[in-house]
Amino acid sequence: MKIKNCYFPLFVSPGVLEKEKDHVEGFAPEVAWVTKSGKSDLEVPIAIRPTSETVMYPYYSKWIRGHRDLPLRLNQWCNVVRWEFSNPTPFIRSREFLWQEGHTAFATKEEADAEVLDILELYRRIYEEFLAVPVIKGKKSELEKFAGGLYTTTVEAFIPNTGRGIQGATSHCLGQNFAKMFEINFENEKGEKAMVWQNSWAYTTRTIGVMIMVHGDDKGLVLPPKVAATQVIVIPVPYKDADTQGILDACAATVKTLSESGIRAEADFRDNYSPGWKYSHWEMKGIPLRIEIGPKDLANKQVRVVRRDNSAKSDIPMDSLVEKVREVLDEIQQNLFSVAKQKKEACIKVVKTWEEFLEALSQKKLILAPWCDEEEVEKSVKERTKGEMGAVKTLCSPFDQPELPEGTLCFASGKPAKKWSYWGRSY
Amino acid sequence: MKIKNCYFPLFVSPGVLEKEKDHVEGFAPEVAWVTKSGKSDLEVPIAIRPTSETVMYPYYSKWIRGHRDLPLRLNQWCNVVRWEFSNPTPFIRSREFLWQEGHTAFATKEEADAEVLDILELYRRIYEEFLAVPVIKGKKSELEKFAGGLYTTTVEAFIPNTGRGIQGATSHCLGQNFAKMFEINFENEKGEKAMVWQNSWAYTTRTIGVMIMVHGDDKGLVLPPKVAATQVIVIPVPYKDADTQGILDACAATVKTLSESGIRAEADFRDNYSPGWKYSHWEMKGIPLRIEIGPKDLANKQVRVVRRDNSAKSDIPMDSLVEKVREVLDEIQQNLFSVAKQKKEACIKVVKTWEEFLEALSQKKLILAPWCDEEEVEKSVKERTKGEMGAVKTLCSPFDQPELPEGTLCFASGKPAKKWSYWGRSY
Repeated sequence: MKIKNCYFPLFVSPGVLEKEKDHVEGFAPEVAWVTKSGKSDLEVPIAIRPTSETVMYPYYSKWIRGHRDLPLRLNQWCNVVRWEFSNPTPFIRSREFLWQEGHTAFATKEEADAEVLDILELYRRIYEEFLAVPVIKGKKSELEKFAGGLYTTTVEAFIPNTGRGIQGATSHCLGQNFAKMFEINFENEKGEKAMVWQNSWAYTTRTIGVMIMVHGDDKGLVLPPKVAATQVIVIPVPYKDADTQGILDACAATVKTLSESGIRAEADFRDNYSPGWKYSHWEMKGIPLRIEIGPKDLANKQVRVVRRDNSAKSDIPMDSLVEKVREVLDEIQQNLFSVAKQKKEACIKVVKTWEEFLEALSQKKLILAPWCDEEEVEKSVKERTKGEMGAVKTLCSPFDQPELPEGTLCFASGKPAKKWSYWGRSY
Repeated sequence: MKIKNCYFPLFVSPGVLEKEKDHVEGFAPEVAWVTKSGKSDLEVPIAIRPTSETVMYPYYSKWIRGHRDLPLRLNQWCNVVRWEFSNPTPFIRSREFLWQEGHTAFATKEEADAEVLDILELYRRIYEEFLAVPVIKGKKSELEKFAGGLYTTTVEAFIPNTGRGIQGATSHCLGQNFAKMFEINFENEKGEKAMVWQNSWAYTTRTIGVMIMVHGDDKGLVLPPKVAATQVIVIPVPYKDADTQGILDACAATVKTLSESGIRAEADFRDNYSPGWKYSHWEMKGIPLRIEIGPKDLANKQVRVVRRDNSAKSDIPMDSLVEKVREVLDEIQQNLFSVAKQKKEACIKVVKTWEEFLEALSQKKLILAPWCDEEEVEKSVKERTKGEMGAVKTLCSPFDQPELPEGTLCFASGKPAKKWSYWGRSY
């Protein structure tokens, strides 16, 4: 996609941070300020980036002169800090997190619009094809869009156990708001002065938290094979009077064979833990596939494999090891996604009235409701549902809209509905 | 090397930061403190990591129980902040920089000692084989070693133009100092309680600054081919009445052929700049090799190549393009290293007396002198040479020690010399 990697500083001066009014209003309460170095007070406190629009765009203004400098497409992998006061949750809501943030500038809105969706599709693929987490593509409401942007698209996930939605990753069209404040202008093909159209988009270490919550069970983590650092754990199962050395050798050979074929395998040769203890240990760590090798397996030239996702056991002949392990890993990847998708879909509840809405909410459903698309109505829904569990908000208006028959009314305001929207409590 | 990547937080609490006394004394003046979020003062200010020993080792204490948990070898790629008050210089001395920091724990000092040198050798290879910068391997003096560590090894570079040494990267043996303060203990094979031996080691974005200063010239950057993001820039040289489209097509084909062979090539097709302007532009950006294609080249089925390092020009037949370009890139890489090495070696001056030392210093030499290895003497040399240009200090005691005949005296104190050491002003 011709996007180049770059790196901009962690610190941002108050002057540029405060340049785009809506943007700073959105982020100001969460900004961490460095005011001291050693024992000395700084003359001017300096902020830690909550996001890098204001760090990068003063340079975009310098670098972009003519239409031949466009598109400008940069990405950085870095940490950002948002001093959240609500419950910190590892990976999901933490004061520091890691992300990639892409920042692009185009000559036309059409190009910017197209890129917003191209990136969103990449995010959907990360979730669905790698993390095995089903997501819903859609657009955020005006209240929930990125501070200072024109519109925000999102991939939304849902955690059935807690009945909460979670924003997976967002791709924003910033329009020309930042271009105006940071004077990012160019001479177009006709020699006229024009303003760029900008996007920004990011996915974060939150993806890890979503994956953990969607697949984890009472035994611990469950990692999809495609993203597991270790895909296969090999455990020797020696018996008294058995050929222990032969078993250890077979385990080492199994790891070697798998590793040479690009499968990420390790063995646990520790002699101060029992096989049973090791099974639980590696289940807790979510390793997708366990291979056990005992005297019988050795004799039969086979290994026993046990899946983390459904505990299914089977025997694999040593001479088709790689091929069969690869097959099982693919099945696990597919199965995790199918199960997660079924669970999510079972949670979707279409409602048309406030009463149905409240009932679905009490049942921890992912609620799809016709909405008048008015900001005041979203605020009032928040107000009416606030409490210990947190208020309900819109998650997104899905791109894939069900039919909306003429005369359908908003579930909350009773006014004519303009679109279907997902609603729920969220992380 | 079985080192695993990890990530620890940016923030460190005052409690753990101050646990190792020498360590905090070394870093305290440079630590940036967050004291506010939004408009609220934090109850307890929190520090930004200047390095991560104190962030990581509380966890090492929890994770390490028995000898089977050792060695523990983790690495993280991250940013750190040191609020330097001396002249900030891009890449060389900046308040935020990027690095990898490795943190390892071993059961024995022997293993730790061996790893210190294994890592140092990797750093030498990064400098010499990739950045084409010659370095000297050696040990830091007690005054210059890592705060809180046992000993520090270093690869030192030298900038002939300014006559200053520069620390390239360091690999530290921490001994058991941190293990003691953070209680990193384990049960050894005999069932006895023991303390781990630790190392930490890092190389930073400073490598980029060293590379720029060693190879750069009056036309701008000079990038070694192995690390250049773009290795070859292809520039069309159209003439009036010539087959412009044919030339553009040949340029595009050249980029395609090179790219498909893994050579990082781009073309500059902008039509609002002259070829001459483009030559200067890409020279300034340090691209190792320029390919020009004009009507004659097209007719002769050849391209003209121009080296950035020595301006040498030659013609390459299109049908041996990849092979020849690869050869030339290898030659450039070799030549940059040879030239830098010759220049550095021409700067080395062996001195035996204070007078010779001062003369060599005024000639911007890299000074090798016999030294008594006493901290007070290094301090006094610093004191006697301080001034506008900055004080002189030891750069390192090279592992490769010249013979030191019995009776050789320290150049500074007149006491019996114990070793040869490099001295100089530094970045």
